[in-house]
Amino acid sequence: MDSRNIRLAVIPGDGIGTEVVTEGLKVLEAVGTKVETTTYDLGAKRYHETGETLPDSVLDELRGYDAILLGAVGDPSVPPGVLERDLLLKLRFQLDHYVNLRPVKLFPGVETPLGKARPEDIDMIVVREGTEGLYAGTGGVMRRGTPHEIATQESLNTAHGVERVVRYAFEKAIGRPRKKLTLVHKTNVLTYAGDLWARIFDRVGLEYPDVETDYCHVDAASMFFVSQPERFDVIVTDNLFGDILTDIGAAIAGGIGLAASGNVNPDRTAPSMFEPVHGSAPDIAGKGKADPTATILSVAMLLEHLGLAQEAARVEQAVADDLVERLTGWAGRTTHEIGDDITARVAG
Amino acid sequence: MDSRNIRLAVIPGDGIGTEVVTEGLKVLEAVGTKVETTTYDLGAKRYHETGETLPDSVLDELRGYDAILLGAVGDPSVPPGVLERDLLLKLRFQLDHYVNLRPVKLFPGVETPLGKARPEDIDMIVVREGTEGLYAGTGGVMRRGTPHEIATQESLNTAHGVERVVRYAFEKAIGRPRKKLTLVHKTNVLTYAGDLWARIFDRVGLEYPDVETDYCHVDAASMFFVSQPERFDVIVTDNLFGDILTDIGAAIAGGIGLAASGNVNPDRTAPSMFEPVHGSAPDIAGKGKADPTATILSVAMLLEHLGLAQEAARVEQAVADDLVERLTGWAGRTTHEIGDDITARVAG
Ligand SMILES: CC(C)[C@H](C(=O)O)[C@@H](O)C(=O)O
Ligand SMILES: CC(C)[C@H](C(=O)O)[C@@H](O)C(=O)O
Repeated sequence: MDSRNIRLAVIPGDGIGTEVVTEGLKVLEAVGTKVETTTYDLGAKRYHETGETLPDSVLDELRGYDAILLGAVGDPSVPPGVLERDLLLKLRFQLDHYVNLRPVKLFPGVETPLGKARPEDIDMIVVREGTEGLYAGTGGVMRRGTPHEIATQESLNTAHGVERVVRYAFEKAIGRPRKKLTLVHKTNVLTYAGDLWARIFDRVGLEYPDVETDYCHVDAASMFFVSQPERFDVIVTDNLFGDILTDIGAAIAGGIGLAASGNVNPDRTAPSMFEPVHGSAPDIAGKGKADPTATILSVAMLLEHLGLAQEAARVEQAVADDLVERLTGWAGRTTHEIGDDITARVAG
Repeated sequence: MDSRNIRLAVIPGDGIGTEVVTEGLKVLEAVGTKVETTTYDLGAKRYHETGETLPDSVLDELRGYDAILLGAVGDPSVPPGVLERDLLLKLRFQLDHYVNLRPVKLFPGVETPLGKARPEDIDMIVVREGTEGLYAGTGGVMRRGTPHEIATQESLNTAHGVERVVRYAFEKAIGRPRKKLTLVHKTNVLTYAGDLWARIFDRVGLEYPDVETDYCHVDAASMFFVSQPERFDVIVTDNLFGDILTDIGAAIAGGIGLAASGNVNPDRTAPSMFEPVHGSAPDIAGKGKADPTATILSVAMLLEHLGLAQEAARVEQAVADDLVERLTGWAGRTTHEIGDDITARVAG
């Protein structure tokens, strides 16, 4: 890849997905990097028109890009779970996005529901495993609809899958000032999976004597996100626990409108995909009410992933500056207006 | 059972468990109800001395009581998970505690990390399933310790198990002023288990037209606990999600020192067990630093369960009054002192 010419696949998706992606692309353009975008109409509309969620041919095409920017998928008109599983999760699994990277950071000026928390108290990165665990989708049902029905759901964990994400997390931790990594699991109940995670965490940790390590059960960690968020620097955890923790993280860091994420394939055997943590929010879609900030911060993560660290920093700084201004009464801006304001900062 | 003569089994357990149980029993006595207690030395000490966690003979004896009061089990000297699984979870499973009842209530005067939350915003009950799901403990490991290791963990869900706890939750909801019940699950990913839960929830709901029903994914629910706790009245959810949510609940309602719980067998085929949500806290054990309030509120739940509603209300009121006083500088009281103060209110 010529790092000055990004080939980007764009999946706006459903609901507010299209609105926030428009702003994300505006900011990306303002960065000055040459970007060639191709838009894919995956989502509810295509599903209704063709029955397709993610055809193999499209998946193959997507493999050819440097990165993917995704808005959000999901619509009440589609049976629950279909687009999530057959589109979003299929992308994460097929493109081997084994790191789901989710910063939880309180920007100065942003209101948090935690009355006493200051920006320096909430500054962590959750490294969520992205290709295993209960998200494998295995399980089954027997005697469906009868009083004797049983339904099972399986968490699949491999040494291969756990070790690679744990290594990534140690590398992240050692690159940060605090150098602290916390494993979050539920080893006292999920004994088989928990034991695998804990053993690998301990073994890999021996190679990183400078990283301070810690362990926390998921229930306690969820509590500490609220009562002592300053406890955390980098967290590594499984797919489902990461899903839950990062939504709590979004809440404490000022809301889902600000939470960015990257579905990262660190081995670069396929493009990584960047997306806001929020969903398609059908209730506010089309009204210009969505906050594009999460998508814009996801664009910053995309730039960083592509080696454009300075450009990423510029976007993040523009967002930070915009967020400070909100204190003094910039509420009520539309999606476009916020996008324009941040774009102007990036350009200027 | 003669409701004026409670036969109570007491399992103080480890760490601060013994300290808080002492205060709980003091309050129970002050209520004036005749209580006959028998103490069981289950926990770390017995494990070290005899290798036993919960012998069948003890389990059989426990079945003969009206209720069980448990402090906390767990000690760093015991391999992680042993006492949790072979003692605590074994009790819950063997005594068919299919309802794990956990109120999340902000008492006036109590400080919450949520800057803007008022007591009327945080007043819910989590009905956590207690005998199924990932807590079944099934799963396995293959090629342990090799790069090809795989570890699985299974969530087992039955129509029988789900329906009984869902029915219980609807009954709880209809008895409360708001009459709102929210199912929390992750139906878009845990499709087999989620589908079973959702179908049973909908079907049973038809019998309760006066109960307003709602559904929330566990990640969103975890976020709403922080950003919009007023959204919830009664929640019904599976074992693991309930574990996580109630720890967030403890955090927002003033901390783990106040969170009470009941492991309830509503069919009364075995005694129910009441315990604080907190653990044995070895770091502060023996120092008189533990807050016995969670245990005292668990005693109130125990009284309520045994049909002594007035007595339960008196204990809860005494706690509420004590908590208001804390505003004006009663910090620094020891475990005993808090117990004494609440006891005095109950007695007087
Ligand atoms: C939409 C859903 C499948 C997804 C997940 O559970 O991973 C979402 O909650 C997220 O966190 O990106
Ligand atoms: C100690 C542990 C097994 C237990 C659980 O997970 O249920 C605890 O966290 C709880 O919530 O009572």
